[in-house]
Amino acid sequence: MAERSAVTIAGTLEVLLGEKKYSTIRDILVTMNPSDVAGVFEELEDEKVIPLLFRLLPKDQAAEAFVEMEPEHQELLIKGFSDSELKEVLDELYVDDAVDIVEEMPANVVRRILAAAAPEMRRDINGILRYPEDSAGSIMTTEYVSLRPAMTVGEAILRIRRTGVDKETIYTCYVTKDRYLMGLVSVKDLLLAQDDETLISDIMETNVISVSTHTDQEEVARMLSKYNFIALPVVDNDNRMVGIVTFDDAMDVLEEETSEDIAIMGGMTPSEKTYLHSNPFDLFKQRIPWLMLLMVSATFTGMIITGFENALAAQVVLTAFIPMLMDTGGNSGSQASVTIIRAISLGELDFSDILSVIWKEIRTAVLCGLALSVVCFGKIMLVDRLLLGNTDVTTFVALVVSLSIAVTVLVAKTIGCSLPMIAKKLGFDPAVMASPFITTIVDALSLLVYFGIANIVLF
Amino acid sequence: MAERSAVTIAGTLEVLLGEKKYSTIRDILVTMNPSDVAGVFEELEDEKVIPLLFRLLPKDQAAEAFVEMEPEHQELLIKGFSDSELKEVLDELYVDDAVDIVEEMPANVVRRILAAAAPEMRRDINGILRYPEDSAGSIMTTEYVSLRPAMTVGEAILRIRRTGVDKETIYTCYVTKDRYLMGLVSVKDLLLAQDDETLISDIMETNVISVSTHTDQEEVARMLSKYNFIALPVVDNDNRMVGIVTFDDAMDVLEEETSEDIAIMGGMTPSEKTYLHSNPFDLFKQRIPWLMLLMVSATFTGMIITGFENALAAQVVLTAFIPMLMDTGGNSGSQASVTIIRAISLGELDFSDILSVIWKEIRTAVLCGLALSVVCFGKIMLVDRLLLGNTDVTTFVALVVSLSIAVTVLVAKTIGCSLPMIAKKLGFDPAVMASPFITTIVDALSLLVYFGIANIVLF
Repeated sequence: MAERSAVTIAGTLEVLLGEKKYSTIRDILVTMNPSDVAGVFEELEDEKVIPLLFRLLPKDQAAEAFVEMEPEHQELLIKGFSDSELKEVLDELYVDDAVDIVEEMPANVVRRILAAAAPEMRRDINGILRYPEDSAGSIMTTEYVSLRPAMTVGEAILRIRRTGVDKETIYTCYVTKDRYLMGLVSVKDLLLAQDDETLISDIMETNVISVSTHTDQEEVARMLSKYNFIALPVVDNDNRMVGIVTFDDAMDVLEEETSEDIAIMGGMTPSEKTYLHSNPFDLFKQRIPWLMLLMVSATFTGMIITGFENALAAQVVLTAFIPMLMDTGGNSGSQASVTIIRAISLGELDFSDILSVIWKEIRTAVLCGLALSVVCFGKIMLVDRLLLGNTDVTTFVALVVSLSIAVTVLVAKTIGCSLPMIAKKLGFDPAVMASPFITTIVDALSLLVYFGIANIVLF
Repeated sequence: MAERSAVTIAGTLEVLLGEKKYSTIRDILVTMNPSDVAGVFEELEDEKVIPLLFRLLPKDQAAEAFVEMEPEHQELLIKGFSDSELKEVLDELYVDDAVDIVEEMPANVVRRILAAAAPEMRRDINGILRYPEDSAGSIMTTEYVSLRPAMTVGEAILRIRRTGVDKETIYTCYVTKDRYLMGLVSVKDLLLAQDDETLISDIMETNVISVSTHTDQEEVARMLSKYNFIALPVVDNDNRMVGIVTFDDAMDVLEEETSEDIAIMGGMTPSEKTYLHSNPFDLFKQRIPWLMLLMVSATFTGMIITGFENALAAQVVLTAFIPMLMDTGGNSGSQASVTIIRAISLGELDFSDILSVIWKEIRTAVLCGLALSVVCFGKIMLVDRLLLGNTDVTTFVALVVSLSIAVTVLVAKTIGCSLPMIAKKLGFDPAVMASPFITTIVDALSLLVYFGIANIVLF
């Protein structure tokens, strides 16, 4: 290992490990943020040294770094832990992080984790695991500060000081009575209160925004972002408080959901693996279904062309404009669909807006179509006919192509904006209705438009 | 106005306004979160009533709702404010929010705002306006809690109680000496400290992660998300602390940057206007440049086809497979480019990874290309030849098409993964290298591949 150049921290650590300089390694590691420790561990040449390095970390830093590591390394570490080591790490974890880990581990590792967890944590983990995937219940933590309405500010601060160490956030405290959510106070409110004898019920905010355990995680994250909250309370069907979702988890959810949308919009099955952790076979599995589907569905475009074979044989010049026409149609359609998909995922649009959206896209399409067909006509006459001297390109051909462009853009934008909204209404992911899908439909339609107009004008 | 159906809150408010029931309106508004107040104002039929409703809000809720409103309505309100009203709202704003507003207003409104602002806020606004757009300096706020290393925990808590009301966050406090950043403590640390006499210098975290005023806002936001911080300190070139960026602003930045990426990837100029606030002419301006550029650049594909016109006239059947080939190539390329663009924007990849990325894409392309060409060959022989009875489709034609698919996929994926990385290296936005751009290049190349192979096999 000592041969490795020591320009990275991971390299330095491996060299120091070879020289058994454990206290130096420890000195380096404790200066680092737990996320960075996890990052450095991922970069190690030899992953077998991870358990060794991990044991050099102070307890709380170790637990935080553990949470940030890739599942494969978490599994490696857990398998190497003694029962007491595992218990020690678990005791430092927040419940929602423990749940994330449990969800990624194979069954035998899960059994060990649940056996080692303290009874209360085991109960909480099992409780959260019962909620549907991607729901608020599945990402919440049960570790929040709860106060009673009859407490004074002074008592509340005392309670936070006594119980706060194990809470994911102490900054927003929830006021409950028989587990019903009555209101909330922030630590800022408590600290800035004029008098320690003030009652919590007198200063608490009673118009509390909460989500249900079944609310979709993306909606929860968007709400945290919209309201600038540190945490959102999660209540069950009877309006009893069961947990909170914090802003940092919301940021992760938004990043994950955006990556998922972008993958689907690019014609791929989303994956939780990062690009660097995906091997070519993973990428193949993500990409081949759409490619296959779209290739086979192109049979239709082939059939359309075959149907007009005689016309094309008589006017071969028409073939030269097929790619341009198809691309312009595809681009126009995907512009509309991408715009609408993003607006839907930001919560700006829903199905009730469909008529006004279509009307707006039609007007946009008329503007774009006019501009494109005028320039197209000019380009064909100047470049293709005059400059390149292609005498097959008659004024009538130029007319057919420019007319087809205008109609294609109109069709493409109308379809591009409606399909995502219809998909959303039918319960599908609107992102499916992006570029590859729209392009395939618009390709077929643009050919029909082209040959239809050509038939009228030229034959 | 009373005719309007009162099924929405905006409608209800307009009806109540018509009946002059101001105290009922006030009762409704005070139950609402400021973001929702702003949302309701946006939905009003008649925007002239906004100032009237705004004056019914309590002072702090008014200021918070003001921040969340669209620039056009902020401008409308400011123009209607008396000088003392404007001063009152400004006094309630955080500096970073005031800067956001100033950046959107026309010069005469900016002059009024700066004249009405308290001298300290005016100085801070002017300071922040000097930083480059999209830098940490331009989005930070100067209102943070600063402590001295020699303070005790008790003194620190007292200081927070005295000065905290005007700070954007009190939960992370920064320990400075002569304005140099020495460390940080959280309010959690302070509250959980065993002894009020403990010195801040003894409990502060000294390995502080900070950003410079010139750090790009997207990088700042990614760091906040990675480290799960409530705020990140911003330091100047001499390492003196000048401000903080808070998690809620980071969430807005990430949302904005993602929308920008998605727009560019869809072949559009990004816009800060929401879809509902964009009129067809706005959309036209966003979309026409790429459509025009791509249409004109399709001249090349046209020229390639014209060059092979004689071959196509002899074997018209070849034309039928052009759309399928171009689409499969375009989709393969955009899959690769979209994946790489997202990985770059998440900070997972940089230019130094280009060789390993290309190697991974080549292996993926071989897998995809093999699968596609085998299925393509089978489909052509079974469907096009046997089922549809097209006798022009010979085994040789099927061979040419399937071979072309395999080569095109390889070319498309190699180009699709390299261009975004090269763009990043050259300082362009990698998102430009997405679908529309890649498709245009791949279209031309796939035709060259197709006719090249056809020339060898068929003629």
